[in-house]
Amino acid sequence: MKMKLPIDFWFDFSSPYSYLAAEKIDALAARYGCSVTWHPILLGAIFQVTQAAPLVALPLKGDYSVRDFARSARFLDLPFQMPSRFPLPTQVAARAYYWLAAQDVPDATDIAHQFARMVFRALFVDNRDISEAAVVEAIAQQAGLDAVTLAQAVTTPEIKARLKDENDRAIAEGVCGAPFFKIDHEPFWGVDRLPQLERWLATGGF
Amino acid sequence: MKMKLPIDFWFDFSSPYSYLAAEKIDALAARYGCSVTWHPILLGAIFQVTQAAPLVALPLKGDYSVRDFARSARFLDLPFQMPSRFPLPTQVAARAYYWLAAQDVPDATDIAHQFARMVFRALFVDNRDISEAAVVEAIAQQAGLDAVTLAQAVTTPEIKARLKDENDRAIAEGVCGAPFFKIDHEPFWGVDRLPQLERWLATGGF
Repeated sequence: MKMKLPIDFWFDFSSPYSYLAAEKIDALAARYGCSVTWHPILLGAIFQVTQAAPLVALPLKGDYSVRDFARSARFLDLPFQMPSRFPLPTQVAARAYYWLAAQDVPDATDIAHQFARMVFRALFVDNRDISEAAVVEAIAQQAGLDAVTLAQAVTTPEIKARLKDENDRAIAEGVCGAPFFKIDHEPFWGVDRLPQLERWLATGGF
Repeated sequence: MKMKLPIDFWFDFSSPYSYLAAEKIDALAARYGCSVTWHPILLGAIFQVTQAAPLVALPLKGDYSVRDFARSARFLDLPFQMPSRFPLPTQVAARAYYWLAAQDVPDATDIAHQFARMVFRALFVDNRDISEAAVVEAIAQQAGLDAVTLAQAVTTPEIKARLKDENDRAIAEGVCGAPFFKIDHEPFWGVDRLPQLERWLATGGF
């Protein structure tokens, strides 16, 4: 099979639909011989551009969304509970992701993806406050990673600049929400676009 | 088969995703022995409550949406072109719908649904300006309906009050966008929720 370009996958660790997508995208892409490049970002930066606000804060949409998060999880056969604190800041988790993905080990990408899924589950299954550095470090430790070095790494100017660059690049790429995907230049927004994304992979575009 | 409650279907004639849903919902519901009660509304009234704006007017989301409208139509195997004038006022078409649906003929509902689909296609396939009363009347005539009586009916206080009542009731029902559906008390927002809606019909809830 011809090696294909990676799929770009933008998400915020505080986004329920991103959690659902994170559980599905790698396996879906692998069925079509594709890899996925994950980009945790801060939705707040996107919302400043799109004039949006967290769904749960909006009249009518707030009530609907909470119901739809849980039902969409059941539809996709994934566990979910609404976190006590929501939405919440995700800088620490996002920076930890980029530090892990940049490690000079052969399976850095797989480790980083697995860590990201553990962070999502900590928030959306186990109701842990992932805005706390101590919680992110505990997840890293649970994954057998060097939590002490990670704790230091996420405070460096380099890793902070990396997250800022990723936010800026996401906006430049037209990312208008999360989860957001691009296959080559085709954009897909929402976990509910996975069926379209899959047809795109299967047919080479439609 | 046990007779089930009708599905409620709220939409704005100026909403591309509503057009796509309007082409699918009756056949989908019929497969499960359900009928559908259509409710044209004015999204502007909803947007005042949800603090929203037309998608195409928003930075980043605007460009994405135009692309997604067309791709979603191809995904659902439906014709689509972006109208020259968009969004546009849909009071006349909505009032015409309610007048037709209230006619004392045995197939008033089928006639009204068919008329509504013709209005949607006029806008999203043939690029006609359905905000114009003359265009709505021409569509009625094309459908073999009494366009002269319809033209008078849509200007009466009764029919204007009906549309206003429908907008108010939609907000009271939690309708936060379009298309929007309810099966009994379960709400579904977006044409991309039809797969969840279908599973709900097939399983009686999940």
